[in-house]
Amino acid sequence: MTTLDFKLACPRPIDGDSINLSHGGGGSVMHKLIESRILPAFDTGALGVRHDSAVLEVGGARIAFTTDSFVIRPLFFPGGDIGSLAVNGTVNDLAMSGATPKWLSCGLILEEGFPIDDLDKILHSMRAAADAAGVSLVTGDTKVVDKGKGDGVFINTAGIGIVEHDLAIAPGSVRPGDRILLSGDLGRHTIAIMSAREGLTFEGGVESDCASLVVPALALIREGIDVHCMRDLTRGGLASALVEISEASKTRITIDEDSIPVREDVNGACEILGFDPLYLANEGRFAAFVPEHQAERALEILRREIRDAEPSIIGRVEEGSQRVTLRTTIGTGRIIDMLSGEQLPRIC
Amino acid sequence: MTTLDFKLACPRPIDGDSINLSHGGGGSVMHKLIESRILPAFDTGALGVRHDSAVLEVGGARIAFTTDSFVIRPLFFPGGDIGSLAVNGTVNDLAMSGATPKWLSCGLILEEGFPIDDLDKILHSMRAAADAAGVSLVTGDTKVVDKGKGDGVFINTAGIGIVEHDLAIAPGSVRPGDRILLSGDLGRHTIAIMSAREGLTFEGGVESDCASLVVPALALIREGIDVHCMRDLTRGGLASALVEISEASKTRITIDEDSIPVREDVNGACEILGFDPLYLANEGRFAAFVPEHQAERALEILRREIRDAEPSIIGRVEEGSQRVTLRTTIGTGRIIDMLSGEQLPRIC
Repeated sequence: MTTLDFKLACPRPIDGDSINLSHGGGGSVMHKLIESRILPAFDTGALGVRHDSAVLEVGGARIAFTTDSFVIRPLFFPGGDIGSLAVNGTVNDLAMSGATPKWLSCGLILEEGFPIDDLDKILHSMRAAADAAGVSLVTGDTKVVDKGKGDGVFINTAGIGIVEHDLAIAPGSVRPGDRILLSGDLGRHTIAIMSAREGLTFEGGVESDCASLVVPALALIREGIDVHCMRDLTRGGLASALVEISEASKTRITIDEDSIPVREDVNGACEILGFDPLYLANEGRFAAFVPEHQAERALEILRREIRDAEPSIIGRVEEGSQRVTLRTTIGTGRIIDMLSGEQLPRIC
Repeated sequence: MTTLDFKLACPRPIDGDSINLSHGGGGSVMHKLIESRILPAFDTGALGVRHDSAVLEVGGARIAFTTDSFVIRPLFFPGGDIGSLAVNGTVNDLAMSGATPKWLSCGLILEEGFPIDDLDKILHSMRAAADAAGVSLVTGDTKVVDKGKGDGVFINTAGIGIVEHDLAIAPGSVRPGDRILLSGDLGRHTIAIMSAREGLTFEGGVESDCASLVVPALALIREGIDVHCMRDLTRGGLASALVEISEASKTRITIDEDSIPVREDVNGACEILGFDPLYLANEGRFAAFVPEHQAERALEILRREIRDAEPSIIGRVEEGSQRVTLRTTIGTGRIIDMLSGEQLPRIC
């Protein structure tokens, strides 16, 4: 792993009066925008929880509700496209609440001149991803903007899932003693996008990890693991997710570099590009916080349910001041901060 | 009223291979896109209903779920802004199903360089509109696109409402004999946008009718009116809504020009601009289909609940071939078609 070069990653100066790309990057600048501007304007309890989904009571049932917009560039990339991403991204946010995803909405913002054949491909990807995740698209909207005022297609999906457990799966439920599981290797989605965008080729070809996390996430719950928190590792990567959870749970988190899988080709690309895999966006990876005595059992479940990646136990939660520390391969400790700006714009 | 000039309204040729602005216009070109491309790719029962919201079963309860993206230009206009529009638009779709709106999601797509002060104004408008409609914003997402790849801000909202009645409020429930109520005068939103966009000024100033329809729509249901269908009159206007309902219910619809209120200044603007008020988008008007024997009672309820407009009974449903006819002031009949292309791009 190389050190993240924030200047390289965020070349534009941050102007306090207007939006810049780092406001969408998943790091501390985005968090500051959300906390200082968006949350105060709404000020509702459910948003205050700062989790991937809001959990709401309907009659006697509990539902999870979430939304995500997708502005990825390019629209088609190795391992997926904006359509599969738009379904899996929202489905995964629901699964991270332990909800069974049921229904999706789809809002399309099309740019004038966008090829209808490309729209067809994207719609078929959405359908295939929805079928794979067991969700139905039930409501939609289509808008068109003038040429030069959009970028092909932007997609928003919102999703509803049913919460069928009594666990409080949230950052605030994480406790000292918890073990942290990672569902597979890091960084593939970002490197696949980089290669598609910049015309870089890597030996063997790196494909996005874009996939539904519904089956492994719900298997943990169904088989009695007392899951404290789950988080999919999108914008900001593993590092930003852990920092946020450490802050919300007021705990210290330690992870071991040796236990965090990164493919050789992804690692090589990171060294060339000056990226740190810990901060790279993934679209088919998650971290789960479980009690120590259930960690091995949880790992077995993930290994059984995840065929194309190697889940591992990567660290633990301790008492102490809020901090995330990486124990490196050579035995030193490195403090992990939240991604500050924007590592790679429009990654999802 | 003047005749709609489609050439003026849709100046660009329609190219069969790529998206043009008429694909977002709410008329027959958009309907063809949805029917030929989007619905087949998803092919779910709920979308097949072609109503403003999907109605879904959760435990013992029924919820309505809907989504809408907002790409209006300009962002701020007389009588509202994209924020109030984004809340009212989705809340109204829920209310048209007879659902009590409860929760909204908010997906922001911001363009690099967008002033944060403007974002604040929009967020505060959203909050004020949400408070007025009795809904909570519970989940959100923020994305940023490069300068020149968006247009200030696009907003997607999805909404969940609770259905607390046993009526089947849908186009297919409309029956011969039904009376059609209109909640107020037509065309203000479109003329307000036109005036803001083109710098036109009209005597007195025309403000958008942008508002929540929750209170009058739910009052009809609560007070025992057997509502067969409700529809808010956005893109495509009253004309397109009636044509769609006539087709879905396989009935003939007749409306009386004399009974359809259009303000003098809006009518004047329409004559100058070559618009037909029947096709103009509104953001605070709806049509309700009710049984004949309850029509006067329903009108009383709307008159009591709507303070700033004059509801009226505008027509009736008859047996016969699917068709919408306008009886004009001079006693002739005019067949009303669905809006064909795009009357005014980016009206919502």
